[in-house]
Amino acid sequence: MKTFMDRDFLLQTDTARELYHRHAASQPIIDYHCHLDPAMVDEDHRFRSITELWLGGDHYKWRAMRTNGVPERLITGDASDWEKFEAWAATVPYTLRNPLYHWTHLELKTAFGINDCLSPQTARSIYDRCNDRLQNDPAFTARGLMRHYHVEVVCTTDDPVDDLHHHRAYKEQTKSSGNDSPRMLPAWRPDKAMAVESPEAFRKYVNRLAEAADIDIRTFGDFTDALQRRHDFFHAEGCRLSDHGLEEFYATPYTDTEIDVIFNKVYDGDELSATEIRKFKSAMLYFFAVQDAEAGWVQQYHYGALRNNNSRMMQQLGPDTGFDSIGQWQTARELSRFLDLLDSEERLAKTILYNLNPADNEMIATMLGNFQDGSVAGKIQWGSGWWFLDQKDGMERQMNALSLLGLLSRFVGMLTDSRSFLSYPRHEYFRRTLCNLLGNDIEQGLMPFTGYEEQRVRQMVEDICYNNAKCYFGM
Amino acid sequence: MKTFMDRDFLLQTDTARELYHRHAASQPIIDYHCHLDPAMVDEDHRFRSITELWLGGDHYKWRAMRTNGVPERLITGDASDWEKFEAWAATVPYTLRNPLYHWTHLELKTAFGINDCLSPQTARSIYDRCNDRLQNDPAFTARGLMRHYHVEVVCTTDDPVDDLHHHRAYKEQTKSSGNDSPRMLPAWRPDKAMAVESPEAFRKYVNRLAEAADIDIRTFGDFTDALQRRHDFFHAEGCRLSDHGLEEFYATPYTDTEIDVIFNKVYDGDELSATEIRKFKSAMLYFFAVQDAEAGWVQQYHYGALRNNNSRMMQQLGPDTGFDSIGQWQTARELSRFLDLLDSEERLAKTILYNLNPADNEMIATMLGNFQDGSVAGKIQWGSGWWFLDQKDGMERQMNALSLLGLLSRFVGMLTDSRSFLSYPRHEYFRRTLCNLLGNDIEQGLMPFTGYEEQRVRQMVEDICYNNAKCYFGM
Amino acid sequence: MKTFMDRDFLLQTDTARELYHRHAASQPIIDYHCHLDPAMVDEDHRFRSITELWLGGDHYKWRAMRTNGVPERLITGDASDWEKFEAWAATVPYTLRNPLYHWTHLELKTAFGINDCLSPQTARSIYDRCNDRLQNDPAFTARGLMRHYHVEVVCTTDDPVDDLHHHRAYKEQTKSSGNDSPRMLPAWRPDKAMAVESPEAFRKYVNRLAEAADIDIRTFGDFTDALQRRHDFFHAEGCRLSDHGLEEFYATPYTDTEIDVIFNKVYDGDELSATEIRKFKSAMLYFFAVQDAEAGWVQQYHYGALRNNNSRMMQQLGPDTGFDSIGQWQTARELSRFLDLLDSEERLAKTILYNLNPADNEMIATMLGNFQDGSVAGKIQWGSGWWFLDQKDGMERQMNALSLLGLLSRFVGMLTDSRSFLSYPRHEYFRRTLCNLLGNDIEQGLMPFTGYEEQRVRQMVEDICYNNAKCYFGM
Repeated sequence: MKTFMDRDFLLQTDTARELYHRHAASQPIIDYHCHLDPAMVDEDHRFRSITELWLGGDHYKWRAMRTNGVPERLITGDASDWEKFEAWAATVPYTLRNPLYHWTHLELKTAFGINDCLSPQTARSIYDRCNDRLQNDPAFTARGLMRHYHVEVVCTTDDPVDDLHHHRAYKEQTKSSGNDSPRMLPAWRPDKAMAVESPEAFRKYVNRLAEAADIDIRTFGDFTDALQRRHDFFHAEGCRLSDHGLEEFYATPYTDTEIDVIFNKVYDGDELSATEIRKFKSAMLYFFAVQDAEAGWVQQYHYGALRNNNSRMMQQLGPDTGFDSIGQWQTARELSRFLDLLDSEERLAKTILYNLNPADNEMIATMLGNFQDGSVAGKIQWGSGWWFLDQKDGMERQMNALSLLGLLSRFVGMLTDSRSFLSYPRHEYFRRTLCNLLGNDIEQGLMPFTGYEEQRVRQMVEDICYNNAKCYFGM
Repeated sequence: MKTFMDRDFLLQTDTARELYHRHAASQPIIDYHCHLDPAMVDEDHRFRSITELWLGGDHYKWRAMRTNGVPERLITGDASDWEKFEAWAATVPYTLRNPLYHWTHLELKTAFGINDCLSPQTARSIYDRCNDRLQNDPAFTARGLMRHYHVEVVCTTDDPVDDLHHHRAYKEQTKSSGNDSPRMLPAWRPDKAMAVESPEAFRKYVNRLAEAADIDIRTFGDFTDALQRRHDFFHAEGCRLSDHGLEEFYATPYTDTEIDVIFNKVYDGDELSATEIRKFKSAMLYFFAVQDAEAGWVQQYHYGALRNNNSRMMQQLGPDTGFDSIGQWQTARELSRFLDLLDSEERLAKTILYNLNPADNEMIATMLGNFQDGSVAGKIQWGSGWWFLDQKDGMERQMNALSLLGLLSRFVGMLTDSRSFLSYPRHEYFRRTLCNLLGNDIEQGLMPFTGYEEQRVRQMVEDICYNNAKCYFGM
Repeated sequence: MKTFMDRDFLLQTDTARELYHRHAASQPIIDYHCHLDPAMVDEDHRFRSITELWLGGDHYKWRAMRTNGVPERLITGDASDWEKFEAWAATVPYTLRNPLYHWTHLELKTAFGINDCLSPQTARSIYDRCNDRLQNDPAFTARGLMRHYHVEVVCTTDDPVDDLHHHRAYKEQTKSSGNDSPRMLPAWRPDKAMAVESPEAFRKYVNRLAEAADIDIRTFGDFTDALQRRHDFFHAEGCRLSDHGLEEFYATPYTDTEIDVIFNKVYDGDELSATEIRKFKSAMLYFFAVQDAEAGWVQQYHYGALRNNNSRMMQQLGPDTGFDSIGQWQTARELSRFLDLLDSEERLAKTILYNLNPADNEMIATMLGNFQDGSVAGKIQWGSGWWFLDQKDGMERQMNALSLLGLLSRFVGMLTDSRSFLSYPRHEYFRRTLCNLLGNDIEQGLMPFTGYEEQRVRQMVEDICYNNAKCYFGM
């Protein structure tokens, strides 16, 4: 029986162990997509407790607690930090086989050096030990944790109206301190600029945008001018990456005149028809994609989530609180049309597609190949297992399907997509999983591992862990 | 080479073997959903032959025989019991790798103590040995078999118009005989009360319901009053569970007036439009769910079957004769709306969702979490692999996805969903599969297995096999 | 560590090795569906280079090269054979874990006896050695390769307007040469006769058909008469198999009058509505199926590809050049209606269904059973992993789902579906994969392997590799 989470965790073969320890473990991290708060990086936030760090915003843990019968007061309510931690510690033993069990212990181990399993028996001791480090150890601030995990670059997720002052201030600060601080770059996430299904919120957003861009917005043309100004501003601040959260893809034909009319209608506060919404979203997706192509950015699409399913809790807690799930859409044809339109105008930027429903895996994995144009290796990428799929099984299924239907060697690899400064061990998890897949194949004689091919495999590990992303994003 | 189906069948590791034999094997069975005939239980039916028991109504076996080129006469026709058995025995060796091969031999072994493999060579001997026990051994009646397999409770599947006289008679009989007889409770299956796509059959059903409820039904209000009376009656007879067979979920908005009009229209024998049908089904699903919430029942939804595909055989043999298959529906959004409507009114009962298409697995597994409200552990459940998925691979996929996306520890586990008194070894099959998954994880160092955590794992096995269901259904 | 691609490649257990080497390896090949060029067989084509053979039309390799950043000139452009080969050789090491890596080396090994791995280091040597054999060795022609791989029968894919003169000429030639030449039979692929979504191309096609059938086509009746003449002609030339490439299935109700009108409309060059297109396709699918039933043929349906996604490259290179991918359709209900209509008229021919999206696997696997009528074992077949799924994982998933939901024993097994004379080792690949699955089950005690059952398993291997197809197609 293998010890739980020992040095060779997830590594089933000698080859896997060798590949991981020699080629993967020490690679720096390029976290090209996450939801970390720039203010916390800029201000080098110190956490008051492990409860703040772990349970302050992690809706994965909240869901598990609710499933385990924990009342909301101990999850998002006014209970004390200790009460909440205690409720989480009582839930943890019930999460066996859930990735939370692995994340929790990998974080305890790699950040705090704690090898105990969290349970009601160990809760107090772990709570105290973690809090002591967080409150007193100079290495346990937001930036300290990033340095600890060898984070080289982090790309946050920012709205076009954001003034990026934390990014600028942080850049200023670290200019002097040399190379040991991770770089923090903004990423462009303009979802609200296409959310015309809520006319009132959209109108408010347009007004905020007008202010941010210092443009008087009266027409659709003004609207896109404002967005372009903000895009230019983001570019000047080092942004090279956009991201879009979509239910499905939109490529409904439309005319410019139609979009002008739709914009005026929604801006006047009117509800749009389903067709008008699709046309407007199609126009915006196209507009954003052209912006990115012209600026030489990478565009990311996260699609397929069914959000805010629980209206009672939505009213109580707002979005992103653990009430989202995997949706079902047949979007292959629209996705194809969307990419084709851009490709046919030679305006298809480097693109990363992330699906949430694993039933779409093979569709996405084969869609990539339709638009690889030989201009750069791996131009169209399939993003690593996202959200619910960001675990061993999800990663394996993504990497296996990518291997079978595309080129794993050209994969830009892992990202955290996380709100937590403790999520960096997921890179370790991913790397162990990758090395384990390769090790198994080699041990079974499915891959050669001598001479030239051995070097290729070793290089491939380093590439997927680090070099491919470095080269692809050009940051 | 491991011997076929020995004591450690399906158990690949020492840990799995220990968990199974020590914690799983001896747990009683709570069969909370099945299709056993209450009359056979009440009358303690004695089977005339293994043919009656095995081939009298098992459409899984019928399908396999048809696929193997067996003519219908030897399947559902007027051939003798021996001829039919012989045709089945000739088919069995062609079912290698199909779950029927495992079920068949697990049933022979655990019920009859027969370790031979069924084939043309052994057919006569097995036929004679089985029939001898069935005809002569006092332990081989319907109830004897249930006692043999340690069935503690069984919930049948009953129409609202059913008078439940077998349930009542059986209860009366067993009152005196003490605790060694399984309890038999009815379950509420009102599918026909929403089947308005067939106006004529629906009208007949309404008339039967009127009679059963002793209410004169003229309006939709009378209709729901009658259903409520029957629900009350079922409750008084110990029913705590409903079940619904659906193609997909329905949550189309409607007004009460619309439903009144639709009811009158269909009751007058008119065909409804597709929209009217969806509205009526939406209204009924909501009505049933509110009934269950108010009575404190558990509601079950089995969705996704494409039924009666072969109209020639439908005419010849009727429904449930082996001509159903796995359908394709995108029902995530409607399912979400349906559950949300109930949750927002605080009328969401404990709920078990069963999908038939495994492509929906991750959608369902993540849908649960949207409506876990902390009131009780595992309030929203994902049912064990159903129908075509009720086999090792299907069970493993369900348990793995549930583990990754929810809490396996809170799972209410296995049910038979069977028409056969010989299906109880499927619980053994499920338990072996569960222990094997856990054993593999432990052996690979993916789960801890010392101290507190070891006890948790041991308890978890017993919980999933028995305690969780006992606690969840409160029967 | 197992040596890469040694004698026991893919065979993980002793039982698997024994089954493969003793029962599978030596079976002849019945390649019942492929896209080989009849002219090359008839003329016993000699390849000028390994580039022609490998890179002349293999869009799998082209996709991989584009993904690897290779410019189009070195893929389909005017580069020299050596330049193209060199670009491919540089790509190969990046295809590790992709089936291309296995296909490439299995072809080098089994055809040319080359055990080196292809890479920039070995490119020149392998190029020269292959070309030497191709240019000089009498055994390395098109037919020589087929003989080398023990191909007994090959069915090409032919348009109804084809005069089949290569088939006739080849038959004539080989009549004298005895039994050592593979038989080559045509197969009927009438896709263009239902492609009414492109009125102009359809009209041209009708004219070609009129000429081929020597019928003046003015009405839909003339059109089907012409198709029937060609069907009779194909039958006379030995054809016993049809094939249909579909996005989804069509079973929209229509009247004969409607189809007459639609035919006239499209033949006059008018665009059809979406409903008219579906009705026409429904009528044609039905017509073709009845033809096959009456002639006693086997009908094949390949559905689910999303083709020609890249319009820029479509214009440049035409179809089938590597810009197709896996689509998403919910076709279960229409497929069921289509098969039911035929079955209810007792006009359902032997049928093979191939899905491209593995998310449909379980739907298809259970659909078969609805129409197995006991007339012949395995009447309705699920085709082996197709196109993107024609690799170890895809084959395993298909065989596992078929095992669980149908009868693997009755499977007609592998086909190449290839344009290349070097694709025959895929049969070896399939057979190794099959034997490995069985071997693993046996080693784990999931299948018996003594006495009668051992013989059954041994026979089952031979049946799936050869006998089932021989019997099913009756060629």
